[in-house]
Amino acid sequence: MHVFMYLSHWLVLQGLVKRYKDVIDVSSGNPHGMGLKPLTFVRQVLATCFYPPLVHDESLPLDVRQRAQSLLAECDGESIGSYPATYGMKHVRSSVSTFITRRDGVVSDPDNIIISNGSQHALILILKLLVQGRGLQQTGVLTPVPCYRSFNKGLVAQGAVSVPYYLCEEQGWTVQVEELRRALQAARGHCNPMVLYIINPGNPSGHVQSKASIEEVIRFAAEERLFIMADEVYQGCVFGKDSEFYSYKKVLSEMGPPYSTNVELASFHSVSKGFMGESGLRCGYVEMVNLDPQVMRYAYQAFSFNALASVPGQITLDVMLNPPQPGDPSYAVYAQKKINITENGLPGMTCQPINGGIFMFLRLHLSKAAIEHAEEKDLEPDLLYSMRLLEDTGLCVAPGCELRQKQGTHHIRICLATPEEIMEDVLHRLKSFHLRFIKEFP
Amino acid sequence: MHVFMYLSHWLVLQGLVKRYKDVIDVSSGNPHGMGLKPLTFVRQVLATCFYPPLVHDESLPLDVRQRAQSLLAECDGESIGSYPATYGMKHVRSSVSTFITRRDGVVSDPDNIIISNGSQHALILILKLLVQGRGLQQTGVLTPVPCYRSFNKGLVAQGAVSVPYYLCEEQGWTVQVEELRRALQAARGHCNPMVLYIINPGNPSGHVQSKASIEEVIRFAAEERLFIMADEVYQGCVFGKDSEFYSYKKVLSEMGPPYSTNVELASFHSVSKGFMGESGLRCGYVEMVNLDPQVMRYAYQAFSFNALASVPGQITLDVMLNPPQPGDPSYAVYAQKKINITENGLPGMTCQPINGGIFMFLRLHLSKAAIEHAEEKDLEPDLLYSMRLLEDTGLCVAPGCELRQKQGTHHIRICLATPEEIMEDVLHRLKSFHLRFIKEFP
Repeated sequence: MHVFMYLSHWLVLQGLVKRYKDVIDVSSGNPHGMGLKPLTFVRQVLATCFYPPLVHDESLPLDVRQRAQSLLAECDGESIGSYPATYGMKHVRSSVSTFITRRDGVVSDPDNIIISNGSQHALILILKLLVQGRGLQQTGVLTPVPCYRSFNKGLVAQGAVSVPYYLCEEQGWTVQVEELRRALQAARGHCNPMVLYIINPGNPSGHVQSKASIEEVIRFAAEERLFIMADEVYQGCVFGKDSEFYSYKKVLSEMGPPYSTNVELASFHSVSKGFMGESGLRCGYVEMVNLDPQVMRYAYQAFSFNALASVPGQITLDVMLNPPQPGDPSYAVYAQKKINITENGLPGMTCQPINGGIFMFLRLHLSKAAIEHAEEKDLEPDLLYSMRLLEDTGLCVAPGCELRQKQGTHHIRICLATPEEIMEDVLHRLKSFHLRFIKEFP
Repeated sequence: MHVFMYLSHWLVLQGLVKRYKDVIDVSSGNPHGMGLKPLTFVRQVLATCFYPPLVHDESLPLDVRQRAQSLLAECDGESIGSYPATYGMKHVRSSVSTFITRRDGVVSDPDNIIISNGSQHALILILKLLVQGRGLQQTGVLTPVPCYRSFNKGLVAQGAVSVPYYLCEEQGWTVQVEELRRALQAARGHCNPMVLYIINPGNPSGHVQSKASIEEVIRFAAEERLFIMADEVYQGCVFGKDSEFYSYKKVLSEMGPPYSTNVELASFHSVSKGFMGESGLRCGYVEMVNLDPQVMRYAYQAFSFNALASVPGQITLDVMLNPPQPGDPSYAVYAQKKINITENGLPGMTCQPINGGIFMFLRLHLSKAAIEHAEEKDLEPDLLYSMRLLEDTGLCVAPGCELRQKQGTHHIRICLATPEEIMEDVLHRLKSFHLRFIKEFP
């Protein structure tokens, strides 16, 4: 409802005289849509795979042409136009398992990996396998608050019940086991909570879970026999000084039996997120750990009906997991784009440290006057704020009410995977509007 | 079961001393996998979209560079890495509707078109919408015999009942309304037949339906209130001298009310098939006609969870529907590859005229001795034939028993979308083997 209102408002604005040069849309995680430039190496390799005569084009770096040749050799008929194998190209599934083994220091089996048409598709298919029952027996999925919008929509569409657990903003959006337990017990009155959904690094929170926190969560899942769905698509985007990404697979394996042999886990990754941001190419993977063989069989069946990513998408995944190495001709250009975070010290606005992911989730401390004004207009306060921000400055952000938040708190989400000069403009517009807004509603 | 047996047989052969130079696999419709070369224009446009500096590369034709620029302008941030809109890029949906309007002389509404990750995915999702009930109420789908394998697998996995109707081989694999009626009435004893699945041009039959035949089928569907699923992915592949492709949409529209306003139809098309054969790029579309608004709403919902094709796939579809025109620099090179059919006059083998599609479905008239030999080995006769063909000559074809056929008949399927020199080799191997085989089993 709100989204449509917001969107139609935005569309109306397109036809009005604007007070600003252009609209900047940082409301969603669509990096290329916001002007982030693709990585040259990735695109050169793909262009060469599409048009193999480029293998002889000496204006392209040698490692690009060699990489394209070796990837084409993995395709039937040496063409990316040939059907990929069900569950993903053999070479790509093996690249994923090599990547995971190297990342975790724990062996990964290619047979547990399925390549999909984006990680969201894999999430939905895995969810579907776990959903059953009605009433008290209906599958419940513990879902973080805040959380990006489409997950909850997808979950409900698959017939599951969303069981919210609140991340602790005051402690930097940490996952608290007491809160998981509270949510679980509350849910048992009306459904059968079987799945725990975790996003690490967080969207929109920007929190990166510590190893100790992951261990706690795994112990909790083991006690309560929960299936863990670990959405780890921002794993390549960790930039906090003291933060490090630990995968659920690694921590689970290192905890040893009975955890490492019993806790069921599905972990997701994607080419859409992080510094690469190739969302339009639609490719991701899921690794399944400790799945019941019966469930595994159904998983294979569910993925066999054209959930499969295109060959160019799979090649992009392969290149993401095997970037150029020091000494390679393309290494220098393949500069990992670090997300630039500017501290902001505005009154009436706070932000927890952002250690990973591609979002900033700013808390608005709105005055009574502002909240009453929103109530008069029958709008959530942060939606009103976002609409006014768009109207006054052309800056489009996502209001917290769309991402769920603790009752009585208000937020806005800004995507950080945005070119630096645009980000400066974003912060400038936000700052000048915010100061006017708090002056208007003191 | 048979497939696995066949495949393992094939794999065992890989390790054996072979009597032939290499294996030629014409068993499935994977044109690029079999060495068919991609169309230069398509691949040059895509390479330029991936790596936009190629826009300035004067070794590429001007129309390629202009086309790439105009397609990039349709992407957010002018990058194919940005998220496409749900249901498909606006530009591509509109290109599809323009193509259909031009093809049929009947207006097509872009809102009735959804772009999908391959036409099979769209088929499965539409099927899923129509499947309901158990026992006598379970949705039945009238399905042609012969038919490619994965459709029946997908149909059963979605919880529908496959209701076979036999194409009339003696009359060139035509669809006979009496046979549809027989199949329907027989099915009413055990399920609720609601859907009629048609493949035109046929796979594997190579039959192209006449306008009169389509009218008959539509009248039958109207009487029996069947939802028509028209698989028209081979529409670009009609080469019979007196054959012409008529879409179900066109014929339905021209029949006028009550047909044109009542009969529910979903029509499918794809970049995977025909002379382009870009199966690895995973893109297709469905056009929905006369759908109940309630069903339409569910269709939109079903397609909203990442059934979406990648942007490169969508661009490929756009280029397929808008090929270079006479006078364009790339027109001369964009030579439509015509499928080469060699008449064969072998004893014990017949083939109905092939007017479209990319397959040849050859009938084997096997001797009593051959059939008894197969029975001794507990194999379907055409599976035995195919295994021996592979073993002796390295030629891999699909046995008719895998594609369903009338009891007591035997066939093999060969994909024709194969480079000409390979096709010659295919026919040579087939001929020499066949003559040996009928000598062995007189």
